Amino acid sequence: MNFVSNIRVVMIETSHPGNIGAAARAMKNMSLHRLVLVNPKQFPAEEATARASGADDLLATARVCASLDEAVADCQLVIGASARLRSVEWPQLDARECGQKAVAEAQAGLQVAVLFGREHSGLTNEELDRCHYLMHIPTNPHFQSLNVAAAIQVVTYEIQMASLAAQPAEAVDEELADVARMEGYFQNLQVTMQELGFMDESNVKLMRRLRRLYQRARPSLTELDILHGILSAAKGKKYQWMKDRLDLLNKEVDHITKK
Amino acid sequence: MNFVSNIRVVMIETSHPGNIGAAARAMKNMSLHRLVLVNPKQFPAEEATARASGADDLLATARVCASLDEAVADCQLVIGASARLRSVEWPQLDARECGQKAVAEAQAGLQVAVLFGREHSGLTNEELDRCHYLMHIPTNPHFQSLNVAAAIQVVTYEIQMASLAAQPAEAVDEELADVARMEGYFQNLQVTMQELGFMDESNVKLMRRLRRLYQRARPSLTELDILHGILSAAKGKKYQWMKDRLDLLNKEVDHITKK
Repeated sequence: MNFVSNIRVVMIETSHPGNIGAAARAMKNMSLHRLVLVNPKQFPAEEATARASGADDLLATARVCASLDEAVADCQLVIGASARLRSVEWPQLDARECGQKAVAEAQAGLQVAVLFGREHSGLTNEELDRCHYLMHIPTNPHFQSLNVAAAIQVVTYEIQMASLAAQPAEAVDEELADVARMEGYFQNLQVTMQELGFMDESNVKLMRRLRRLYQRARPSLTELDILHGILSAAKGKKYQWMKDRLDLLNKEVDHITKK
Repeated sequence: MNFVSNIRVVMIETSHPGNIGAAARAMKNMSLHRLVLVNPKQFPAEEATARASGADDLLATARVCASLDEAVADCQLVIGASARLRSVEWPQLDARECGQKAVAEAQAGLQVAVLFGREHSGLTNEELDRCHYLMHIPTNPHFQSLNVAAAIQVVTYEIQMASLAAQPAEAVDEELADVARMEGYFQNLQVTMQELGFMDESNVKLMRRLRRLYQRARPSLTELDILHGILSAAKGKKYQWMKDRLDLLNKEVDHITKK
């Protein structure tokens, strides 16, 4: 099943190289091969190779990135693993739904990333900002924190189960925006709102809420062009409004001066 | 959900104590707590405690047994994890079906065991002989062998998923025979067949086939009594037949002697 090549596992700032090796083994067991490491503490490492136990080809071809944005720039679907259920109302998937969604979209030709955070603290809010969905593995409420490689084992198992059950791909109507293009839009949105005086520089909560809204909508490239167009128009309008106001003031000044 | 206390994980002759610790953590994450170790190579062990990472209470209460029979004597359902699909026609479950079956039967009050074999060689045929079902996790056909703790993570996850979806328990009509009673029957069956001259001492294949048949049927205690009764009757009949034949010979000898 070739479409699984469209699915990558991204491990962020993993502390223990043994977990990277165990994750590689888990992935290969479940027919996945694209491992991306964002700022691993120690890699390559002997312990990673030992725990990979025959999946060292995945370690050899693993991509190491300096930032999450670099790791997922070309992705149209980003799912972040989260041990806690966050207070923010993020769209949630359980591991089974995550497997089904990842497979359905990979099959439709989209690039899919599943993110796994640090051993002790998971993903930061800034990293969750890149996610279309949060994924939660139902666990014992009194002992929730899964080992990161164990979590990858469960999710890749669900991806394998979903891909075994997969039906022929549905056609996609329009190409969806990838992370790089979405980030470009959020950048434009933030700057525009600041210029419009709608938001001051530090309004992280508002940006988060807007990110969630647009990532839930998952705009196509055409739609993203339209959204950029709206921002341009808004900025143009603001300038026009200021220009009009300036003109008016100038006229008044002229009027007073002439008196 | 109290019924999960009826489910135990049995690890057989585990070589690496780290795997025992990781298994304990996986179990606790998925709300299970009964771990049974058959002849672990090294236990207790520092590495097990380290990898358990907060699930050391499961290690402290783990039962260590000298034999599989001791570990599962009181179980009415035994499922054995198997990486390979065996050539023998054993009833098969995948991990999802295993979770559903384990939960359904635990909920009905039965004692359930899921067996995991050695790191390098899995379960022996003699151990599979104790199983009602073999359980197989669908994996990459080119890289099948899961780490034992990873396999336990997948199965306990499926048990957790099934227990979250569980409906109120169905009533059980009759108490099912546990492993100890089934072994007692197989012992009786083997001895009886030897006495009847139906089988010589070494016919392992025939016994395996009969085990599969009866384990598939999963007799209740009442039914097992009936089966024992049939064996007694068969032995009685054989003795009667031999006695009759002996009487006949004696008469012939008498007849000849008197001639």
